[in-house]
Amino acid sequence: MSIREEVVSKAKQAKKAARKLAHIGSEIKNKALLEMADELEKQTEQILAANEQDMDYGREHELPESLLDRLLLTEERIKGMADGLREVAKFDDPIGEVLGMKKRPNGLKIGEVRVPLGVIGIIYEARPNVTADAAGLCLKAGNAVLLRGGSNAINSNKAITNALAKAAVQAGLPEGSVQLVESTDREAVQVMFKLNEYLDVLIPRGGAGLIQAVVQNSTVPVIETGVGNCHTYVDGEADLEMAKRIVINAKCQRPGVCNSMETLLVNQDITEEFLPVIVKELKQKDTLVKGCAKVQEIVAEVELATEEDWEAEYLDYILAIKVVKDIDEALEHIDKYSSKHSEAIITENYTKAHKFLDLIDAAAVYVNASTRFTDGGQFGLGAEIGISTQKLHARGPMGVNQLTTNKFIIFGNGQIR
Amino acid sequence: MSIREEVVSKAKQAKKAARKLAHIGSEIKNKALLEMADELEKQTEQILAANEQDMDYGREHELPESLLDRLLLTEERIKGMADGLREVAKFDDPIGEVLGMKKRPNGLKIGEVRVPLGVIGIIYEARPNVTADAAGLCLKAGNAVLLRGGSNAINSNKAITNALAKAAVQAGLPEGSVQLVESTDREAVQVMFKLNEYLDVLIPRGGAGLIQAVVQNSTVPVIETGVGNCHTYVDGEADLEMAKRIVINAKCQRPGVCNSMETLLVNQDITEEFLPVIVKELKQKDTLVKGCAKVQEIVAEVELATEEDWEAEYLDYILAIKVVKDIDEALEHIDKYSSKHSEAIITENYTKAHKFLDLIDAAAVYVNASTRFTDGGQFGLGAEIGISTQKLHARGPMGVNQLTTNKFIIFGNGQIR
Repeated sequence: MSIREEVVSKAKQAKKAARKLAHIGSEIKNKALLEMADELEKQTEQILAANEQDMDYGREHELPESLLDRLLLTEERIKGMADGLREVAKFDDPIGEVLGMKKRPNGLKIGEVRVPLGVIGIIYEARPNVTADAAGLCLKAGNAVLLRGGSNAINSNKAITNALAKAAVQAGLPEGSVQLVESTDREAVQVMFKLNEYLDVLIPRGGAGLIQAVVQNSTVPVIETGVGNCHTYVDGEADLEMAKRIVINAKCQRPGVCNSMETLLVNQDITEEFLPVIVKELKQKDTLVKGCAKVQEIVAEVELATEEDWEAEYLDYILAIKVVKDIDEALEHIDKYSSKHSEAIITENYTKAHKFLDLIDAAAVYVNASTRFTDGGQFGLGAEIGISTQKLHARGPMGVNQLTTNKFIIFGNGQIR
Repeated sequence: MSIREEVVSKAKQAKKAARKLAHIGSEIKNKALLEMADELEKQTEQILAANEQDMDYGREHELPESLLDRLLLTEERIKGMADGLREVAKFDDPIGEVLGMKKRPNGLKIGEVRVPLGVIGIIYEARPNVTADAAGLCLKAGNAVLLRGGSNAINSNKAITNALAKAAVQAGLPEGSVQLVESTDREAVQVMFKLNEYLDVLIPRGGAGLIQAVVQNSTVPVIETGVGNCHTYVDGEADLEMAKRIVINAKCQRPGVCNSMETLLVNQDITEEFLPVIVKELKQKDTLVKGCAKVQEIVAEVELATEEDWEAEYLDYILAIKVVKDIDEALEHIDKYSSKHSEAIITENYTKAHKFLDLIDAAAVYVNASTRFTDGGQFGLGAEIGISTQKLHARGPMGVNQLTTNKFIIFGNGQIR
């Protein structure tokens, strides 16, 4: 079977499955999710063995430690995936909810009902847990899912998908509800990009390069996720103790994720009071600090930041700091460099807080809180499939509701125009 | 200035305008809409003169009558455009509405606020009234709009856009809020397809060819609109008087639009009673009837329908009729050929009505009413920018709300993770 044949035949089967899945009730879907969780735990040994193959390959090919860590599965991580599926089983089923039915003057009753998207393609990189997380959310919302993970994790992904698919079918979901594209050749992804006939949406999960490749080449509608060049602006009227706490949290609590802060903007009125303190704390947390010339004037040992630093999504213990004249310069800087993910202002000034909320164009805009909260769980959506940084369909953390669409239903009694 | 330079410089200006437009209140936006309406009427003479140039060109090049009719402007049609803008001015402003703000356990107040999409590109064909309609809806929702109409209407479109842009700026909207791409070369559209930096969404309005060209080639997110291969299924338990009225309305009231019916499915139990009557009425309305072999058995003079007929969006006084065994065969046929626009069942049977509503995958699903109602005005959304037949972002008639997106706003008091 050629690569193309594999992808097309699986996509076709997914489409078939999706037609049935759309009309399967919550009871069976939830039963399937719970049995998928059990099956993952039951197959822990096989999954760990498969993961060991991927790890061996990764070590032989000298993959970076951070990547190997993302690739690594343990008994605990498998339990984590299983518990994730059990959590999703507890969510309300979004499908079938009727939104705002109204009676029109001519007597037509017109409402909108929430229905699944159909077939969702997920294109992701090293982390094998995405396999279970994405499958669970897609199924909960009545969608079939076609997964395509990175080649480094292929054995792990196969083992996980086998367990999930087996349990799903046993619980009564149609064959083809959860499938993995097994070809690790780039061509497989290119085939997915053009499969408008079978795929309703593609969601890339991974680094900026992967996401851009999908956006630039796919004719299937795409939901862009997760590139985060996030800023925090500490205003001249900020509570500096609060500012310090938030800045350290936004940068250092987990720098490798998209909602961590990459650039700190500091109002010029507080540089002498704030910069030495915050740079010292950042260094205690092993964070490399870069800064504009004005930062250097106050804290000499800081490296000079360049244009690339303002553009960088470090995803690491590195922070760029820039001194700005006022909120307008902060807004301008953010407007120029932001990836429109999460932006925060720290201020006690009411007017400036609201100006920031109004004028920032991003998925999430914060006053006096860490950007690290941009997350489906933190926002109360349950688990998330990713964080959309585009404007169409969904913006910000996407939960099960964002994996659905609506259709209008119209009850008439003979109306004509 | 090259074609590319024209498009890019206008798109850049639109982006600049959009940043300001997002924060302009309803009062100024509505004032602008009313003054745009007045200015259109004031410039009736210039617009008609420009339209006459397009009509001359069209007649010289022997464009079909139907196209010339869509191209033609009259004093009344200009007044229609102006009144359309006045209607839009009356709508509620969607921008700034806060949707579902909730307090999280950690004290964060998280809500979603409705904001404009940014810059909307509209790519359309012969009808110059789209220029005013689209501009009005985009501005109402706080978006800048970059219009690109068909070459046949270029003089009309220029005259209309001049009037609109002049009035918009005079009323206080930023320069560049309404612009027309004046190059009629195909290259202009190709440049728009790739301008992700400046354009937030492209909405094609026109025939299937145009729409597919945009979907296949654009890296800017697209909202697909308006191809309608719509069906009506007359069930064995239908009220046949009602069925007749609805069928005639769905086919003949205005066959040139996307929500008109293209294929009629008739249950085998009622063929003898229903087919001769309906075919006779259709013929009285000058409608060419094609049918499957079973239709021919009952009404001999009907032309034999082929595979192409089931696939056709005639947009004309032509109807294909197929006899089906039961609702399942009707559902199968629709599933195979539907463009997922609007589908109707005529039945008095409760269970079959709900089965149809549940199982049909389309933007609008009807029981006992004409598919002709799929329309923003009829659905109570006010004017519409088009009818989305895709699943992402918007499905069905799109009004001003569908030209917006949300952002999360978060009020904290020092929260960290």
